[in-house]
Amino acid sequence: MAEKKMVNAITDMDEDFAQWYTDIVKKAELIEYTSVKGCMAIRPYGYAIWENIQKILDGMFKETGHENVCMPMFIPESLLEKEKDHVEGFAPECAWVTVGGSEKLEERLCVRPTSETLFCEHYKNIVHSYRDLPKLYNQWVNVVRWEKTTRPFLRSREFLWQEGHTIHATAEEAIEETERMLNLYAKFCEDALAIPVIKGRKTESDKFAGAVSTYAIEALMHDGKALQAGTSHYFGDGFAKAFDIQYANKDNKLTYPHQTSWGMTTRLIGAIIMTHGDNSGLALPPAVAPIQAVIIPVAQHKEGVLEKAGELYDRLKKAGLRVKLDDSENSPGWKFAEYEMRGVPLRIEIGPKDIENGQCVIVTRHNGEKSFVKLDELETAAAEKLQAVHDGLYRKALENRERRTYACTSMDEIVKVLSEKGDGFVKAMWCGEEACEDAVKEKTGVGSRCIPLEQEHISDTCVCCGKPAKHLVYWGKAY
Amino acid sequence: MAEKKMVNAITDMDEDFAQWYTDIVKKAELIEYTSVKGCMAIRPYGYAIWENIQKILDGMFKETGHENVCMPMFIPESLLEKEKDHVEGFAPECAWVTVGGSEKLEERLCVRPTSETLFCEHYKNIVHSYRDLPKLYNQWVNVVRWEKTTRPFLRSREFLWQEGHTIHATAEEAIEETERMLNLYAKFCEDALAIPVIKGRKTESDKFAGAVSTYAIEALMHDGKALQAGTSHYFGDGFAKAFDIQYANKDNKLTYPHQTSWGMTTRLIGAIIMTHGDNSGLALPPAVAPIQAVIIPVAQHKEGVLEKAGELYDRLKKAGLRVKLDDSENSPGWKFAEYEMRGVPLRIEIGPKDIENGQCVIVTRHNGEKSFVKLDELETAAAEKLQAVHDGLYRKALENRERRTYACTSMDEIVKVLSEKGDGFVKAMWCGEEACEDAVKEKTGVGSRCIPLEQEHISDTCVCCGKPAKHLVYWGKAY
Repeated sequence: MAEKKMVNAITDMDEDFAQWYTDIVKKAELIEYTSVKGCMAIRPYGYAIWENIQKILDGMFKETGHENVCMPMFIPESLLEKEKDHVEGFAPECAWVTVGGSEKLEERLCVRPTSETLFCEHYKNIVHSYRDLPKLYNQWVNVVRWEKTTRPFLRSREFLWQEGHTIHATAEEAIEETERMLNLYAKFCEDALAIPVIKGRKTESDKFAGAVSTYAIEALMHDGKALQAGTSHYFGDGFAKAFDIQYANKDNKLTYPHQTSWGMTTRLIGAIIMTHGDNSGLALPPAVAPIQAVIIPVAQHKEGVLEKAGELYDRLKKAGLRVKLDDSENSPGWKFAEYEMRGVPLRIEIGPKDIENGQCVIVTRHNGEKSFVKLDELETAAAEKLQAVHDGLYRKALENRERRTYACTSMDEIVKVLSEKGDGFVKAMWCGEEACEDAVKEKTGVGSRCIPLEQEHISDTCVCCGKPAKHLVYWGKAY
Repeated sequence: MAEKKMVNAITDMDEDFAQWYTDIVKKAELIEYTSVKGCMAIRPYGYAIWENIQKILDGMFKETGHENVCMPMFIPESLLEKEKDHVEGFAPECAWVTVGGSEKLEERLCVRPTSETLFCEHYKNIVHSYRDLPKLYNQWVNVVRWEKTTRPFLRSREFLWQEGHTIHATAEEAIEETERMLNLYAKFCEDALAIPVIKGRKTESDKFAGAVSTYAIEALMHDGKALQAGTSHYFGDGFAKAFDIQYANKDNKLTYPHQTSWGMTTRLIGAIIMTHGDNSGLALPPAVAPIQAVIIPVAQHKEGVLEKAGELYDRLKKAGLRVKLDDSENSPGWKFAEYEMRGVPLRIEIGPKDIENGQCVIVTRHNGEKSFVKLDELETAAAEKLQAVHDGLYRKALENRERRTYACTSMDEIVKVLSEKGDGFVKAMWCGEEACEDAVKEKTGVGSRCIPLEQEHISDTCVCCGKPAKHLVYWGKAY
C-alpha cells in the first residue's frame, strides 16, 4: 500500500512552477490545508525545518546581545492608531476581536500583524534613563495579516516569525543595529540556507509603515521571481514621539530614543523550496535539514546487512548528524525516490557487496553524484559530503541568479530581455522619482526590489525619464 | 541612581501572600503589565525561565517519540461546535474574531483556547490506515481564554503552553500514553523544578470538556493553596466519532481511533515563585534558572580582583554553567540583594583576601549558607552546590506539603484543622457522588483536587454522607 505513494506525481517545474510548488509542500508533507482559509497546519517535517532555522538564528541573536521576550498577541485599536503611518499601513489587513466570552468588547482588539506598538508601550514603562538603554529584544511568535490571496509559507494569513525590536540612545546606534541585523540575515541565508542574497534599501514607496528607512535582503527563485527574505527597519525617533517615550540623558535632559525592528518568517521555507528544489522534489540545505543523511539497507533480508546499517547509524549519530535508518519493508527504489522527494542531503546505501568490500555508497541529493566510501572513513566523508551539498546548492543558486540578472539601459531593453530570457533581476538606473518607479512597473512589469548597498554604474541616466540617475536599482517580479 | 532600586520593598509573604507574589513578578522583572487586560509582557528574565522549561520538556517529548507541529490559531465556530461537551466547556471563554481586513466575516473565528478540534480536522485529512497510527504530536503555542479575574502567569487571558495531541489505534495505547505523559510531567516537576506533586485523576465534575478521564499533577504552594501544574486527558473515541475520523484496520475494517491530549503552561513559572520564593524574593531551581551562578567581585578596584573574577567566569562558563559576572559599579551589598531577589541559585564572592588564600566564597540562595571553596576545586564545588540547591528546594517544598497535609474523617474536622493550621491539602474519603463533592466544598471551603493514583485507606465512610467510601480524595483551595 505504501508503495503506491510514489513521487512521480509532482508536476514538472518548467511546465507549471506554481503547481510544482504546491505539489512539493503537500507531498513532502510540509503542510496540510485547513478549513481556515489562508492558515496552514505545519506538519512535523515542515516544522522541523523551522525549528532548525530558529535554533541557528536564535543563537546568532543571542551572540549579538539580544534577549527574547513575549508581548501580548492583542493590540487595542487606540494603541495601533498612535503612529499615523503605521496604522494606515496595517489597519486594512488586521483581524479584529470584537467579542470576548459572551460580551461585546468596548474596544476592538487587533490580532498583532507586527508588534511595534506593543513594544513602544512597553518601552514607555521601562525606559527612563540612559542607563536603561539600549534594549535589544526579540520574540518568536505568530502574527496575522488578512491577505486576500494566500499560498503556503509565501503568503499566509497567519505566519510564524521572529521580530526583533530595539531601542537606543542615539540615531547612530540604531542605524548601526539596523545594518548589523541586515548583515546577520544575509549571512544566515548564505551560510545556513545556501541562498545568495542582495542587500539593499527599499525605495520610499516600498518602506515599512512608520519607518524612516527599510533595508531588505532579496533572493532570486528558480523561476526568476524575487523573494524578500528578511527586512530591517530604522525608525528614527518617530515612534518614540508618537508614544511619548523619553529618557533622561547623562545631563538629565529628557531625550527621544531611536528604534529599529527586523524580521524573518516561515516564508524562508518557501524560499528554500523555490531556490533549491527540482523535479525530484525538495533539496534541503544541510544546516536546516531535519534528516541530513538517510541510511538505506540494500537486500536487507541478507545476513548482516541490517546490523551493519545499524552500526553506521550509531556512528553518524554519535558524530552529531541528524540521521535516519529506514529499515521498513518498502523497496530500496521506493525509498530512494521518497528521500529524494523529501530533500535529504545524503543517501547512504549499504548492501552485502558493500560490506564485503568494506565500503558504502553515498549519494548527494543536489546532483545525484554517487561515491564509494570506505567504512572506516564514514564520519569524515559524510561531513565532507554535507559541505559539498551546501556548496553545490549555493553555487547552483548563484549561477541561476547570475544567469537571470540583466543590466538594462532602456525600458525597451527591459521588455525585450524579459520576454526573451524569462523573469529575473533587472539592474537599471533610476532618478529617484516615484513617478518613474511606477512607470517602470507599469510598462515593463517589474517593480523596484531594492537599491543595492553595493552600487554599480550602468549608465548616467534614469532608465525611465532620461534625467540624471541617482541609484542603481534591482527590479523584478516578486512573491 | 541604580542603588535606589533596593529590594526591601517586597511585601512580607506572611502578611499578604498575594501582594508578595505581585511584588516578585514585577521586581524580579519577570513581567510588565500592558494595556490589554489580562495579557502580560513577559520580560527577558521571565522568558528565559520559560525557554529553559521548553528546552527540557521538549527534549523529554522528543525522547518519547513525539514530533512538533503547528496548527492555526483560529477555529471556525462550526468546527468548535462539532463535539458537544467540548464546545459547552470552552465557548463561554472564547475571544471571537468577527472582522478580517475591512469585512465582516461570514463565520466567526475563535482564537484557540485549546486545539483538539483543529487536530481532529487534521487527523481526518491524514489518518486513513492503521499504518498511519499512532501520531504523537505536540505544539508550543499561545492560547486565549477570556477569564474574568486574572493574575500574571497563574490566570491570564493569553498564555503560552505546549499542547500534546496523540491518536492511536486502540484504547489501551491511548490510555498508556495518557499515563506516560502524566508520569513525564511529574518527573519534570520534581527533577527540573524541584516541585513535589501528587498524581491523580480528576472527578467527573472537574474533567476537561470532552474527555473520558482527566489526570492531573497537583502541587501545594507555600501558602497552602493547591496548584494544578499539568493535565493529561484520555478522550476515548468520542472526538473521533464527532469528527468522523476512521482508519482501515489490518482486516481493512473502518475503525474509530482513540485520542489523548496533555498540556503544561507558563503557569509553571507561578508555581516556581509560590513554591520556592521567600521574603528575599525568588528562589529558582538550578535546572531552569537563567543565571545559575553570579560572580560578585569584592573591592573590585583593587589590583587583580576583576581579573580573577573574569577567570572564574570563564572556567564556570566552560564547565557549562549559565554564569554572570557583575562588575558594575553598584556596591557588593546592593548586588547581593539584587541577585537574591532574582533567585540566582549560587552567589560567588571573590575579593583580595580570598585571592590571597586561593579561595572564593559560595553562598547558596535557598538557605543563605556560606562556604569557602578552594579555587582549584571551583567547578566540582559549583556543580555540587547546584545539586544541593535543587535538593534543598525540593526538601523544603516537600516538608511544607507534608506539614500542611491533613487526614480528616469528618467535615467538622476539616473545618477545624484548616482554621487552626491554615490552608493545605485535606485527605478525606469520598463516596463518589457529586452531591457530596459539592457539599464538602460548600461547607468546608475546599474542593476536590484529585483522586490520587496512590490510594490510602483513612476511613470506611464518605466524609460527607457516611455511606461506604470509594476513593481517597485530596481536597484543597486552588489557584
